[in-house]
Amino acid sequence: MVVIQSIDTARQIQESTQIPSEAVAIWWLGQASFVLKTTSTTILIDPFLNPMEGRVIPPPFTAEQCPPIDLILYTHEHIDHLDIPTLETLARHRSQPRVIAPSPIMDQLLKAGVQPEQLQGVQPDEEIITGTNKILPVPALHGLSFPPVTYSFGQEISDGQYRYLGYIVEMNGIRIYHPGDTLVFAGLVEKLQPLNIDLALLPINGRSYFREQQNLVGNMDEREAADLAAAAGFKAVIPTHYEMFAGNTGRPGFFVDYIRAHHPELTCYLPSHGRRLIYMK
Amino acid sequence: MVVIQSIDTARQIQESTQIPSEAVAIWWLGQASFVLKTTSTTILIDPFLNPMEGRVIPPPFTAEQCPPIDLILYTHEHIDHLDIPTLETLARHRSQPRVIAPSPIMDQLLKAGVQPEQLQGVQPDEEIITGTNKILPVPALHGLSFPPVTYSFGQEISDGQYRYLGYIVEMNGIRIYHPGDTLVFAGLVEKLQPLNIDLALLPINGRSYFREQQNLVGNMDEREAADLAAAAGFKAVIPTHYEMFAGNTGRPGFFVDYIRAHHPELTCYLPSHGRRLIYMK
Amino acid sequence: MVVIQSIDTARQIQESTQIPSEAVAIWWLGQASFVLKTTSTTILIDPFLNPMEGRVIPPPFTAEQCPPIDLILYTHEHIDHLDIPTLETLARHRSQPRVIAPSPIMDQLLKAGVQPEQLQGVQPDEEIITGTNKILPVPALHGLSFPPVTYSFGQEISDGQYRYLGYIVEMNGIRIYHPGDTLVFAGLVEKLQPLNIDLALLPINGRSYFREQQNLVGNMDEREAADLAAAAGFKAVIPTHYEMFAGNTGRPGFFVDYIRAHHPELTCYLPSHGRRLIYMK
Repeated sequence: MVVIQSIDTARQIQESTQIPSEAVAIWWLGQASFVLKTTSTTILIDPFLNPMEGRVIPPPFTAEQCPPIDLILYTHEHIDHLDIPTLETLARHRSQPRVIAPSPIMDQLLKAGVQPEQLQGVQPDEEIITGTNKILPVPALHGLSFPPVTYSFGQEISDGQYRYLGYIVEMNGIRIYHPGDTLVFAGLVEKLQPLNIDLALLPINGRSYFREQQNLVGNMDEREAADLAAAAGFKAVIPTHYEMFAGNTGRPGFFVDYIRAHHPELTCYLPSHGRRLIYMK
Repeated sequence: MVVIQSIDTARQIQESTQIPSEAVAIWWLGQASFVLKTTSTTILIDPFLNPMEGRVIPPPFTAEQCPPIDLILYTHEHIDHLDIPTLETLARHRSQPRVIAPSPIMDQLLKAGVQPEQLQGVQPDEEIITGTNKILPVPALHGLSFPPVTYSFGQEISDGQYRYLGYIVEMNGIRIYHPGDTLVFAGLVEKLQPLNIDLALLPINGRSYFREQQNLVGNMDEREAADLAAAAGFKAVIPTHYEMFAGNTGRPGFFVDYIRAHHPELTCYLPSHGRRLIYMK
Repeated sequence: MVVIQSIDTARQIQESTQIPSEAVAIWWLGQASFVLKTTSTTILIDPFLNPMEGRVIPPPFTAEQCPPIDLILYTHEHIDHLDIPTLETLARHRSQPRVIAPSPIMDQLLKAGVQPEQLQGVQPDEEIITGTNKILPVPALHGLSFPPVTYSFGQEISDGQYRYLGYIVEMNGIRIYHPGDTLVFAGLVEKLQPLNIDLALLPINGRSYFREQQNLVGNMDEREAADLAAAAGFKAVIPTHYEMFAGNTGRPGFFVDYIRAHHPELTCYLPSHGRRLIYMK
């Protein structure tokens, strides 16, 4: 297991009070897990803080050490996104975070201890405005958590509702796209392109028949992520979801080389885990 | 030739007046050429704006379009670093930039039209303080511009003076290391490590017997650049000097993969040419 | 440690009696260690069969299991090339192999138990003819086995003799170049090009300041090996010396990519350890 040199991330998140007024501070916690913070708001996406067996890289802090947060976004129910032990702790956090998740998985969150008044189930295009921030849910084409792997929006097991989501988070006028786990699908470019997204946090682990045989549902791969970014006009990208499990990795080097060769107008960030990154337009 | 979608970089540099007070705005102009800007100062390093034949990527703006600058730093005399046609224009720029260069090449700058009162020749460790900024020249181990390629500090053809330099630029308390063109050499880690460098702009094109036969003097390669960053404790890195000439490239993808495998505590930025990047600690 | 599924390599080498009369059978034993066999002769180069700590890949067979051999070639004295424990066993092998090595290291071989009548010290261009086979020693530019790392032919510590060698082995009219450990140096292309080499077994691990600080003497890298192959007109190449020690690897993927991009006329083989490869013109 790679040991990251001590960066006291939880404390840094809490004490980062000098974030510029037109910036978003970003911490990558590993896999698809991120903290986004402005001077007024701290958002946690898919917090995966459980030091479970099989992780290649430990979480930068535990659920108990989690700094105050205003809002948690969940994209879907898979264990590396909806980490129930972490949620059980965060649901009782003194900062009483609001929680947003796809409507069909609300029961799982309630069971983990989230209070009904904390929780909001959402569907695509149901924009949520909190203070100066906006959260726009978008569909994700992912897969059921039982075999055989099939790709869908999960509607067939969710009374017609979307079960897998991504989010476009607007903070300080900066639009950040967290797609959750998804393939690229018909209509996605068309949906995203008019939204003037600044920064996208894109999975690059791809899909593979052999992983699917192990019930590992796939994502866009390096090339698709880069081509999506270019087609939808994102200005910058952070590759994600490539380093946490030995049998389900992506290749950030190939992502970078492909971008330099085919889409050099894209800026690419590869933050280390737990170290602050400041994004401004 | 890759054509970067229009980012009006020169205008953006000039109009970037909202840089946070604890940040540095950075524009990569290609190869080893950078603009560093704070609320008070604009510094240009190795400006290579000549649209010369053989460039893979055109300059984001011409010398004539160059926004006002306070200071130009030159690391050494090679054509992709000391671009004489660009300097001939910049020397007459209305903003009357100050120019800093290794002492042994001052005559070349004067001949290009730099006025003696604009120009300051420097040697390693001669720290320059301008306003709240500090410039610390450091040695670079590079090579003579005529065959056969040999690596040295250039003292043997410079009356004992260092001919190849790098600079540590401190702006708003942020330390940025631009090594010029250099191999890693004995004593470099020891010199840099105590200086708490935040961000390094590191060449990754390496050296090769076959390039040296064409009189292409080499640099550290991807692995050496990443190992240097880790050994000297840099917090973030931007790979440079890998994309401008077809016969002299580096492999940013390997740089990234090697960092993720061996030094995951390092954050890596790969800015596109001409697009603003904000760096804060 | 990667465990290669059982290929009974030692038995396969011994029983490979149906090698076509115009072919050479080749087994890669890992690092720079090879078996070359024709219907009449078995040659072992730099046999590294010691299951020493730090190996990433175990030897395909032990020195005790080694099949009958006619000739062992040593390129130089470094531990992964002149493996003394292996030699101590092979020197007493029932097949009474002849041993060829650089003259300056003969004392080390005698001390390991090689009988004087078995042993022949050689220098560059002293061609040896055994049956229908020819062995041509060529210089290698490598380094002293003690700090600081400097690159030379070793003459300064060998009474003016070459201490590091490669060999061109001609069997059945096929010329195979094993360079030992070497950088590319002035005159090498010119020496090799007229010799119409068919297949080269080229190290690709490169050199690095940080490895050199640990007294790991470097070699040509991926790019130099590929450019050497093209410049000298080799028809096919096998990359070597990239997989045995975690801190001293090369990147076969980049070697392959570089060849496809720049020298697509070259055929590249990447044999697994211990599995037979048949080379015919």
